[in-house]
Amino acid sequence: MFKRITIIGLGLIGGSLAKVIKAKHLAKQVVGVSRRKSTIQKAKSLKIVDLATLDLKEGVKDSDLIILCSPVLTIIDLAKKIAPFLKKGAIVTDAGSTKENIVKEVKKVLGGENYFVGSHPIAGSEKSGIIYGNKELFRDAYCVIIRAKNTNKMAFNKVERFWKAVGMKTKKMTAKEHDRIVSRLSHLPHIVSVALVNSSGDLGLSLAAGGFKDTTRIASGSPELWGDIFVTNRANIIKDIRSFKKELKKLEKSLIKNNEKDLKRLLEKAKKFRDSIL
Amino acid sequence: MFKRITIIGLGLIGGSLAKVIKAKHLAKQVVGVSRRKSTIQKAKSLKIVDLATLDLKEGVKDSDLIILCSPVLTIIDLAKKIAPFLKKGAIVTDAGSTKENIVKEVKKVLGGENYFVGSHPIAGSEKSGIIYGNKELFRDAYCVIIRAKNTNKMAFNKVERFWKAVGMKTKKMTAKEHDRIVSRLSHLPHIVSVALVNSSGDLGLSLAAGGFKDTTRIASGSPELWGDIFVTNRANIIKDIRSFKKELKKLEKSLIKNNEKDLKRLLEKAKKFRDSIL
Repeated sequence: MFKRITIIGLGLIGGSLAKVIKAKHLAKQVVGVSRRKSTIQKAKSLKIVDLATLDLKEGVKDSDLIILCSPVLTIIDLAKKIAPFLKKGAIVTDAGSTKENIVKEVKKVLGGENYFVGSHPIAGSEKSGIIYGNKELFRDAYCVIIRAKNTNKMAFNKVERFWKAVGMKTKKMTAKEHDRIVSRLSHLPHIVSVALVNSSGDLGLSLAAGGFKDTTRIASGSPELWGDIFVTNRANIIKDIRSFKKELKKLEKSLIKNNEKDLKRLLEKAKKFRDSIL
Repeated sequence: MFKRITIIGLGLIGGSLAKVIKAKHLAKQVVGVSRRKSTIQKAKSLKIVDLATLDLKEGVKDSDLIILCSPVLTIIDLAKKIAPFLKKGAIVTDAGSTKENIVKEVKKVLGGENYFVGSHPIAGSEKSGIIYGNKELFRDAYCVIIRAKNTNKMAFNKVERFWKAVGMKTKKMTAKEHDRIVSRLSHLPHIVSVALVNSSGDLGLSLAAGGFKDTTRIASGSPELWGDIFVTNRANIIKDIRSFKKELKKLEKSLIKNNEKDLKRLLEKAKKFRDSIL
């Protein structure tokens, strides 16, 4: 599909992506760029890239597709840094979990001869780092691709074909729609999970069973990655925390009033809804 | 270990228990009692009991160990109903998820010739019903056994040996300690999970990924079972909802003030704690 693909940021997402590209032969050459020497060494020893480098210029030159896989707050800055070295016609995309900021700013910093299409492959794990790289990570998951007013159609189509070739189902939406949805389905659950852990104390934790473990698993996620995500989607998350608190209040009230009927009605509603999404 | 064991309530817990008792030959005869004909039929066709009956009297007579595996609010009433039919020296235990109420009340209704020891095998699933019965459900999980002032030592030891033979690790504590701990590690996460689902709307649910699914899985639990549990542990849960709200407030505040440092500190704290419990 591409002669040369460069992945900047070789964590869980970047590392997994490199593996898929190699396994599915989606490019003649895969280049990996990291700011850490230790990651470069791991990428080399895992043989998941053809070239691994600390140098952005060396990493992006002659590449047809550049995928920015670093924490959300570093993406705009990275785009600025690579802009002067991009080949004419090169397409830039990213794997950031929030999109309004990125789409708005990255467009500005790339010159007129390059294309930016924002992406969010919705895949991940509470683990981070190249060593957890896994070529099955993306299979059958959704990738949201951002269609903005000024998105180049040819570039959009190429990026969409790329994610499909990776094994993902694609969904097209605006950055605003995207950020609204992920706030509710990903960022709010994460915030709630963190609050649960922080309020749990160290009381008899050996008795923690599946329920506690599942509801709090994501609280093990990287504070750096998630901090960036939350900061760039603040307005939506603050709104969703408010809706959540209203629902929690209803449950709390039914307990305070010992109103079993209301309580069971709220439990029924949640069960019905949760069962419907599998 | 016992000549005859009777399980009253053949749901996920009762059904799984019957399977283990048969598989590990923990009794010569296993009797199952259910209030539903359809469950009796399933128990028979699954061959997990030697005798299945709707009749409490028939179910408990001549049994050495009776295990009450029905929803928490029905346990006390059941104990009352079976009391007249128990064999002299029979031991009664239960699998209820809250213990203060049960231990206090069941003791009162059993005559002086029978022993009650409260148990809580901490195992389960969001699925309910005999058809999900699984003999691996209890393996290596904890079972809390309640040691009250008036607990008969011989009966306690027999019950403890029984749960160990089932494959569980046992922990001895008071009913009060138990209810305090499970409120935080099980009931609060469940309440929070329900509030999350109820606040999630129907917005682009197809994009729900692992994080949402994990944090909300338990919201699919049976409203009847969980309603009973919450009602019998109200005071603890109300207290824990308050602590949780304080922690949520801290996160909300850091977002409102756009205080990245505070936000990441809270994420770090949760990660460290969550990583420590695996």
